[in-house]
Amino acid sequence: MTQPSLQQLEQHDAFISRHIGPDAEQVQAMLKTLGVSSLDELIEKTVPEAIRKTDELDLADAVNEVEALAELKALAGRNKIYRTFIGMGYHDTITPNVILRNVLENPGWYTAYTPYQPEIAQGRLEGLLNFQQMIMDLTGMELANASMLDEGTAAAEAMAMCKRQVKRNKSNVFFVDRDCHPQTIAVVKTRAEHFGFEVVVGDVEKELPADLFGALLQYPGTTGVVRDLSDIIAKVHEANGLVTVAADLMSLVALKAPGDMGADVVVGCNQRFGIPMGYGGPHAGFFAFREAYKRSAPGRIIGVSVDSKGKRALRMAMQTREQHIRREKANSNICTSQVLLAVMSAFYAIYHGPEGLKTIAARIQRLADILAAALKKEGFDLAHDSWFDTLTVTVGGKQGEIYQRALDAEINLRKVGADALGVSLNETTTLQDVSDIINAFTGTAHSLDLRALDSEIAAKGPQGLPNSLVRSSEFLTHPVFNTYHSETEMLRYLKSLESKDIALNHSMIPLGSCTMKLNATAEMIPVTWPEFGKLHPFAPADQAQGYAEMFQQLEQMLAACTGYDAVSLQPNAGSQGEYAGLVAIKKYFEAKGETQRDICLIPASAHGTNPASAMMVSMKVVVVACDNKGNVDIDDLKAKIEEHGDRIAALMVTYPSTHGVFEEGIREICDLVHQAGGQVYIDGANMNALIGVAAPGQFGGDVSHLNLHKTFCIPHGGGGPGMGPIAVGKHLEPYLAGHPVTEVPGTDTANGTISAAPWGSASILPISWMYIRMMGKQGMKRATEMAILNANYVARKLSEHYSLLYTGTNGFVAHECLVDLRPLKEASGISEEDIAKRLMDFGFHAPTMSFPVAGTLMIEPTESESQEELDRFIMAMATIRQEIQDVIDGKHSAEDNPLHNAPHTLDDVMADQWAHSYSRDVAGRPAAWLKEHKVWPASNRIDNVYGDRNLICSCPPVESYME
Amino acid sequence: MTQPSLQQLEQHDAFISRHIGPDAEQVQAMLKTLGVSSLDELIEKTVPEAIRKTDELDLADAVNEVEALAELKALAGRNKIYRTFIGMGYHDTITPNVILRNVLENPGWYTAYTPYQPEIAQGRLEGLLNFQQMIMDLTGMELANASMLDEGTAAAEAMAMCKRQVKRNKSNVFFVDRDCHPQTIAVVKTRAEHFGFEVVVGDVEKELPADLFGALLQYPGTTGVVRDLSDIIAKVHEANGLVTVAADLMSLVALKAPGDMGADVVVGCNQRFGIPMGYGGPHAGFFAFREAYKRSAPGRIIGVSVDSKGKRALRMAMQTREQHIRREKANSNICTSQVLLAVMSAFYAIYHGPEGLKTIAARIQRLADILAAALKKEGFDLAHDSWFDTLTVTVGGKQGEIYQRALDAEINLRKVGADALGVSLNETTTLQDVSDIINAFTGTAHSLDLRALDSEIAAKGPQGLPNSLVRSSEFLTHPVFNTYHSETEMLRYLKSLESKDIALNHSMIPLGSCTMKLNATAEMIPVTWPEFGKLHPFAPADQAQGYAEMFQQLEQMLAACTGYDAVSLQPNAGSQGEYAGLVAIKKYFEAKGETQRDICLIPASAHGTNPASAMMVSMKVVVVACDNKGNVDIDDLKAKIEEHGDRIAALMVTYPSTHGVFEEGIREICDLVHQAGGQVYIDGANMNALIGVAAPGQFGGDVSHLNLHKTFCIPHGGGGPGMGPIAVGKHLEPYLAGHPVTEVPGTDTANGTISAAPWGSASILPISWMYIRMMGKQGMKRATEMAILNANYVARKLSEHYSLLYTGTNGFVAHECLVDLRPLKEASGISEEDIAKRLMDFGFHAPTMSFPVAGTLMIEPTESESQEELDRFIMAMATIRQEIQDVIDGKHSAEDNPLHNAPHTLDDVMADQWAHSYSRDVAGRPAAWLKEHKVWPASNRIDNVYGDRNLICSCPPVESYME
Repeated sequence: MTQPSLQQLEQHDAFISRHIGPDAEQVQAMLKTLGVSSLDELIEKTVPEAIRKTDELDLADAVNEVEALAELKALAGRNKIYRTFIGMGYHDTITPNVILRNVLENPGWYTAYTPYQPEIAQGRLEGLLNFQQMIMDLTGMELANASMLDEGTAAAEAMAMCKRQVKRNKSNVFFVDRDCHPQTIAVVKTRAEHFGFEVVVGDVEKELPADLFGALLQYPGTTGVVRDLSDIIAKVHEANGLVTVAADLMSLVALKAPGDMGADVVVGCNQRFGIPMGYGGPHAGFFAFREAYKRSAPGRIIGVSVDSKGKRALRMAMQTREQHIRREKANSNICTSQVLLAVMSAFYAIYHGPEGLKTIAARIQRLADILAAALKKEGFDLAHDSWFDTLTVTVGGKQGEIYQRALDAEINLRKVGADALGVSLNETTTLQDVSDIINAFTGTAHSLDLRALDSEIAAKGPQGLPNSLVRSSEFLTHPVFNTYHSETEMLRYLKSLESKDIALNHSMIPLGSCTMKLNATAEMIPVTWPEFGKLHPFAPADQAQGYAEMFQQLEQMLAACTGYDAVSLQPNAGSQGEYAGLVAIKKYFEAKGETQRDICLIPASAHGTNPASAMMVSMKVVVVACDNKGNVDIDDLKAKIEEHGDRIAALMVTYPSTHGVFEEGIREICDLVHQAGGQVYIDGANMNALIGVAAPGQFGGDVSHLNLHKTFCIPHGGGGPGMGPIAVGKHLEPYLAGHPVTEVPGTDTANGTISAAPWGSASILPISWMYIRMMGKQGMKRATEMAILNANYVARKLSEHYSLLYTGTNGFVAHECLVDLRPLKEASGISEEDIAKRLMDFGFHAPTMSFPVAGTLMIEPTESESQEELDRFIMAMATIRQEIQDVIDGKHSAEDNPLHNAPHTLDDVMADQWAHSYSRDVAGRPAAWLKEHKVWPASNRIDNVYGDRNLICSCPPVESYME
Repeated sequence: MTQPSLQQLEQHDAFISRHIGPDAEQVQAMLKTLGVSSLDELIEKTVPEAIRKTDELDLADAVNEVEALAELKALAGRNKIYRTFIGMGYHDTITPNVILRNVLENPGWYTAYTPYQPEIAQGRLEGLLNFQQMIMDLTGMELANASMLDEGTAAAEAMAMCKRQVKRNKSNVFFVDRDCHPQTIAVVKTRAEHFGFEVVVGDVEKELPADLFGALLQYPGTTGVVRDLSDIIAKVHEANGLVTVAADLMSLVALKAPGDMGADVVVGCNQRFGIPMGYGGPHAGFFAFREAYKRSAPGRIIGVSVDSKGKRALRMAMQTREQHIRREKANSNICTSQVLLAVMSAFYAIYHGPEGLKTIAARIQRLADILAAALKKEGFDLAHDSWFDTLTVTVGGKQGEIYQRALDAEINLRKVGADALGVSLNETTTLQDVSDIINAFTGTAHSLDLRALDSEIAAKGPQGLPNSLVRSSEFLTHPVFNTYHSETEMLRYLKSLESKDIALNHSMIPLGSCTMKLNATAEMIPVTWPEFGKLHPFAPADQAQGYAEMFQQLEQMLAACTGYDAVSLQPNAGSQGEYAGLVAIKKYFEAKGETQRDICLIPASAHGTNPASAMMVSMKVVVVACDNKGNVDIDDLKAKIEEHGDRIAALMVTYPSTHGVFEEGIREICDLVHQAGGQVYIDGANMNALIGVAAPGQFGGDVSHLNLHKTFCIPHGGGGPGMGPIAVGKHLEPYLAGHPVTEVPGTDTANGTISAAPWGSASILPISWMYIRMMGKQGMKRATEMAILNANYVARKLSEHYSLLYTGTNGFVAHECLVDLRPLKEASGISEEDIAKRLMDFGFHAPTMSFPVAGTLMIEPTESESQEELDRFIMAMATIRQEIQDVIDGKHSAEDNPLHNAPHTLDDVMADQWAHSYSRDVAGRPAAWLKEHKVWPASNRIDNVYGDRNLICSCPPVESYME
């Protein structure tokens, strides 16, 4: 009997079966349930022939985990890690090891979803509340949101919000101090250009215009100067403008808070609070503001509310989700925040406490003081007589020489203008580093006694800070920042928070449109390699060759998966991808001279971000109707095209549709738009139903964004980070975003800049690289097929109990399905929310609720779930259906039934009295598997209205903890 | 105002306050409670002046986490990782990443304690049951224990057990086949020497003696041969001897099981099932045996029992703990097993499943077949015509040349005899490796087509395995090995198990004598560096320079901490340390010609391992009485010395005593023994009360073992790995254990070999190195002081509610305290076990029960617990005291009270009916903090007697899972 060949035994494709949940036997059983004989048949019956891909993916064969990690490690090894003092908003930092291992490297944190279901998300909600409190304290502001994508976009959002806030001020001018970080200026300028604002960049001391709606200042300045902003702020206020201060978080430990100088908005980045530089991200931008703006602030805010039993509980105060975005009225499309990074930085502050942070800041300051004194002694002039951690040194014609000497010593400095060098010190800097920097400046081994210099400075006090700007206000006084300073206490605090949350390490999270698939360990491991983490985004290109090559490969992979020609990795969220795509379209038409094209067609079923993104590029949104199957109404489309003719810039369409269906007409739809001269934007939210079976770049798309955190395995991080690169056709390639500091090959800075960092959240891109590399061409297609199989299996099984809303021509759904609960609600009074909350009792996170259709649940199982897990979910849904029937049949009253009272907490099931018409076990452990493993919701159902009416977004005072 | 100096701001000693729980304020509050003004005063009043250390520790100053990691990384970088085909029981392997991150790098697994409290340890108990099942299946044996320290000691234990089993066979001869691994032979010989057995090593085919009590065979042989052992086994059985087969786990996937050939015991190592080589350990030895031996098998066995409600639950079947060791009657001192590694290897088998393992084994086999065919084609001869993965190649005088050529290609081969080379392939081997090996043999680039060779072999079938030895029996048929093959399923299985257990990431584990302190992340990180993990223990010395230097430094550190002169890092558990220490003493007396010294004095309060260890070196145990304070009765000691005179070899004494007291007389005790010509063995179990304040090497000890997993931060791993190096005075240094394969500098192989690997569990030694390096001389002393403060604080506070058993002269305890529950039991019927189980309801792991005195709890908080946590524990104990009072006062009956019914499970508190005299909340959440975080015991109180009477040590059949 012939044995398998070595090739077969080698199992290069071993990862595919690790990633995909069902094994061969389960696949057969599920196919049988669906009445099809093979996966091929299923795909034939599901994906319209008109778009079905016949060629194979232009990807390499799969390699296994060991091979892929070795390949990537070799790439990573081509990055060079120098000591980097470039500053500009990015600083080396020390991630406390207890946080590194127990948060950043812990699936309990990184695989969680956005906390839309707060009863099973109290852990990270508390983490985010801590983050908000930290930001409020350090900035001296009344409120802060739960994080932004980065400092640049936070500043751009601040500009937009300021414009909204000063309605009576008709000025179109936004002033930006020239001492802001260049990438921030570029992002703000891009955003302003497409909003139609005028940005004036100048010297704030001399060039502040009289007529303006807002101003952006950097504190300390990008070149290091620390100035009192009070007078400037007062001046802008007099002109009825608002002031945004972009501030450095570490410096705020030592400096007077911007809030105390009158700032209206304070933005910045949390990176140096323990988040690796990661060649630019992901980090959490922050956004603090006056209470008056709370209804118009972008992003998400965590607030304190109460649950149905009156117990304090946290939740997102004013939900801003894809579907909550104010569509055509929006001027922000932000939805994702950076939860994982935000909570990490809050934990950093908690672990160090205010005293620990003061010591860290004081040390950085001291080293800067020593460096300043030493350079002066060596005859150099400083550009400013104030500083926190950053010195700009004028070098009398020696810029190149000193810069090169530093490089030779593996030190990166910043070139400032033609004759100065910037040095920005950080938490990791040592006295030896300072000494080496001095040597780079002097060109010989200096003979200064730096410890003696230190003694002199210690006796005199801080040298760089004007007395009036030394921070006197307290911060981080809440007990949470003053309790967990030993590693044991910190570890247990992290664990107790983690234990409150359901993440993918517990059970399926079947969120429609969110693709909560496996985030494999092998994909996550490279993220915390120092070769990827310790690189400054503005490090010289030759130090980032590993990244460059990885980007190039990933771009090719993504292009192959989508059928497009080029990819921009800059957008660091899906929303930013949409925006970047529309900007590219706009630039394309500008180049063609078709500037009259200002209409964006958007089907009624679209994600809320789509119209919001269109608004942000000043396009007019025209809604295209959908038929009763959720498909684009082609007649209406034709009518709209007819009506608007050559004003049509684009159609934004999601495919498969947000209703979970492969519309048959997609090719025709694309053709119609093209014939009208418009461009087709295919929203990549549902790419997980396409790869290998159909390519948007081939069936009519001109551009798509890709949610790498959906289809390409970047974990959701409890609500971020995501990544939203765009893939485009050849004709749009010349219009991809550039970067003002680090050149992105093949781009032009005139195209604008979308994100603060040139390649967005570069350090999580290895996740997607690993995924595609390990799946290979067969695996990527297989994943799609299995996602479709799993969804159809769930749909078919659920159809025995519920009515489904949409299916394709042959009765199959795509990779998700919509359960219509409206008839049942009508009959029983039980709402989709009741069902969502009841699922928590079964240990499941609810599917997407009421999107795209009110009164529905949208279920996307993904390919990673095994049949056992699908069956558990189906059984939970079947049980719930029976419970609804019991309400209909009067076995339970409308007020007292397991659904209405869900979720049930430990407090509930342990109550002394039990007056319900069902048992405690039915309440809390309604299925057998819960006897083995049960995660208890930390709260009863949370009252959102109460919280929004009584908005509290800071840590509750200690007294309130006493019961 | 003068600012702090840079030196102060640099915080090189930052780790100290991370490691130590209480902050400065708490320290003051606790000192006040004790009525002392300073830590110095506390130490003065606690540690006898006669032994109090006045000089400072000979350690460097503390460095912080970043500095220590950088320093260790530099050392690690001096190790060279070659492709290693040495075999001899160690093989490179692939740790599945999901297991790496979620078990080996997860404090939820590695900080757990030994599962003595099974109700809160069901997760790892299931892991261990899986391990036993895996071993039973693969070996074909009826029972397996829950792991041994390594293959060498497992073989030695097998020898001892066989001797116990064949009482009527008076032979003293144990035969060892010469084709066993040399380190196994060395360990067995050492053990035999001190038991007084005669070991005959020879060719099993020709030299098997007629008179013997047992035999040890290797399968496959160390040189690769695969032979049917049935006839040999039958022959030994005819001589009334028993046969132990040392087997390779991976080969058993493909080979006929030793159990099917009649083996009585099968031992081996789990290393190649996903455990890094780690330069020798830690790995889990295994030990499988006939059911008939179940009462005399060494180590721990996990068994299935029922809880008080009749529900199935797991627990250690026949407890073998320090205090359960059969003291003077023992001939094994084994107590620790290697839980963390054992469960990892079981998870490896679960993740791959039987089919996956078969593919891995088949691939290794195929590569070996290809290599064999290629070498034959190139004109080389093989020593054997059978093999699994190991070839021994005779090389016609070219041994040195080929070996060197391989080294030049960064390949390690094994030198066998004078003219052969061994090549052992493994899971990581690629066809490229095979090709490179061929080249090393031929000396030129070979021109063979290896893929063509593969095709030939695939057509013919396996080349190295005799048909009769191809495995036909099934294995790993239980569902647990056939379910969790996708990463998502595996991740959730791991999580569900972890969630059942209490580890240090949840709450204090106040085990007396076990020192459950912080296992800091920074200490754990290096353990999984490949520079430490991927080194073969027999790699040439120049490839292990990093390890060598780390060992040297650690030896110096440990010597400095203890006041001794030299250290042996070989013993890989405390028990092995005791044994190694006594062997050194014995060798010392042999050298002095004082072979009549055969008596070991042991106080009545000693750990049970002490007399067991003495028995293992054939010393006679003479018990010395203790007074009513738990101190050695000096008059009785004098009397025993008087009586036994120059037969006295040693005194084994624990200091501070197992009663938690610094005995005043320790110096006198040591002097008396020395005057009698004896040696003093100071058991290092309580070293955490000594470092920096007193040094056993200075106050009278000649040798101590150090439990690195207690005092020096190696985590308990849920019941192992531990490490038990010994520190000795100058005069004992020449008698430290050597190693037959890799030279241990300064030792002599004539001293014997204690562990299979030269430096025991080398890859976890970085943990202790990191700890000592980061604490520095001040920190190490501070830890001791704080351990004493915390213990005294707990003792003082508990004394308000309970009577304490022992205190020192001034009323202070050492680092632990004993609560005497006998009076309360007398009054209430509530036992120490009731209290232990009730503590689980409060979220705490119980302290040590009934050791060293029945009816007591021994509490050791360690320095890592904060005052808040101590106060929580004290409050729990105070509440329990009140509950006892309520029983005494008749408020609760003797049969229905929260203590008798403890622990309470979810089933309990969710029951429909509640008929208890206390509330559900009192049952399950009797303290406020449990509302924030509660770990539910997975079982009610487990019935040990039932389990021992109905011994089941395998995974229950599927049917039994149905309810």
